[in-house]
Amino acid sequence: MKIDVLTLFPEMFDGVFGASILGKAKEKGIVSLQAVNFRNYSNNKHNTVDDYPYGGGGGMVLKPEPVFAAVEDLAVEPDVAPRVILMCPQGETFTQRKAEELSRERHLVLICGHYEGYDERIREHLVTDELSIGDYVLTGGEIPAMTVIDSVVRLLPGVLGNESSAVTDSYSTGLLEHPHYTRPPEFRGWTVPDVLISGHHGRIDSWRREQSLLRTLIRRPELLDKVELSKKERLWLEEQRKALRTEYEME
Amino acid sequence: MKIDVLTLFPEMFDGVFGASILGKAKEKGIVSLQAVNFRNYSNNKHNTVDDYPYGGGGGMVLKPEPVFAAVEDLAVEPDVAPRVILMCPQGETFTQRKAEELSRERHLVLICGHYEGYDERIREHLVTDELSIGDYVLTGGEIPAMTVIDSVVRLLPGVLGNESSAVTDSYSTGLLEHPHYTRPPEFRGWTVPDVLISGHHGRIDSWRREQSLLRTLIRRPELLDKVELSKKERLWLEEQRKALRTEYEME
Repeated sequence: MKIDVLTLFPEMFDGVFGASILGKAKEKGIVSLQAVNFRNYSNNKHNTVDDYPYGGGGGMVLKPEPVFAAVEDLAVEPDVAPRVILMCPQGETFTQRKAEELSRERHLVLICGHYEGYDERIREHLVTDELSIGDYVLTGGEIPAMTVIDSVVRLLPGVLGNESSAVTDSYSTGLLEHPHYTRPPEFRGWTVPDVLISGHHGRIDSWRREQSLLRTLIRRPELLDKVELSKKERLWLEEQRKALRTEYEME
Repeated sequence: MKIDVLTLFPEMFDGVFGASILGKAKEKGIVSLQAVNFRNYSNNKHNTVDDYPYGGGGGMVLKPEPVFAAVEDLAVEPDVAPRVILMCPQGETFTQRKAEELSRERHLVLICGHYEGYDERIREHLVTDELSIGDYVLTGGEIPAMTVIDSVVRLLPGVLGNESSAVTDSYSTGLLEHPHYTRPPEFRGWTVPDVLISGHHGRIDSWRREQSLLRTLIRRPELLDKVELSKKERLWLEEQRKALRTEYEME
């Protein structure tokens, strides 16, 4: 897969593109990652890429020419139409499902604004997707682009080794993870639950499943609707729900 | 404000901490930003910070000692208890409201895991907040930590210049932004709406307000419930809603 990021701050990506999973995926030749300064595609001698908005008002607006020119220059393979993704607060909220969809593409181009607005013609005639990573205000699209890239690249075949398979497995149950413990068995007086040291695998498995259900019930109850549960588990959860409600009313 | 990030990949932060708003806020002395490798706080000669999970299973678990030691070493000011924030998928979903809350603190410590789970005693006895930036799987807590830091720092007094005030203003209306246009007036046959070139400020303002309402209606209708609208605007929106529905039924 080829991933290009258009940004005025390509140096922001140096640390992230080199490290960890992204660095390894690049080394293995699974993905090519490039941060491109679209100022290089400016068509004027001052190298400006933004201009004042028509109709007045504060702020600057990214001009269409350099963004169109950059995307067209990067889309070199004749049969591959890139997905052109605008990182912006008005976009569709990014989800794991969207990451899976994007991981099946051959070429992604992510466009990052920074303070500025985008000329609407970029949105209407160039962009295929608009994405937001959440309901908070950020300075630019660069960190959101890193987020999308990390979540997409780790899904590409051959990228993840065994080191992270456990995390993936846990997520795929649709429940939040159960608590983890490692050595020492006692730290500042706080001990590891007996069951985990019991060596009894059946009991360990049911403790973990219960903890996972309980944590999901307390923190993200809406996730439980989408999960397949046994009848016994449904009944147990109903009891826990009642107990939590009583606890809450006692306070 | 002092912000420390505990990570095994401090180099990932180099590009982001130096650039743009964060770089400027650091230069102005408004914030001190530090990525700390908590491997430095390992208490064993192999410098390991993780170990196998009690009870078996795949994956590794971050040990409590180095994380406690690092946080305690960084919390140097006697009267300032840091907010200790664990970046994890099980956490509360990060929002702008949370960013505002955190921007009133004096010291934040963000803890980033990477593949590994956290020993539960870190969560129970050290951490004050657990945050997730959205419902997608990432390789580690580093990019989420950057997200939180960027959104918090830009709220600190003196950080934002005029260059980004427009964006903030727009967000604060609770609506999505209206379209922006800049030169050229015609690009590849696509023209700027006449109203924006009319010079008639009253008409420009109402066009922008309508476009903002319309975009919010189409993309994020739930936001409209929280916004103050005139009676005329409510009626206009109701008409648009009906028109959109008819359009949809025609297809």
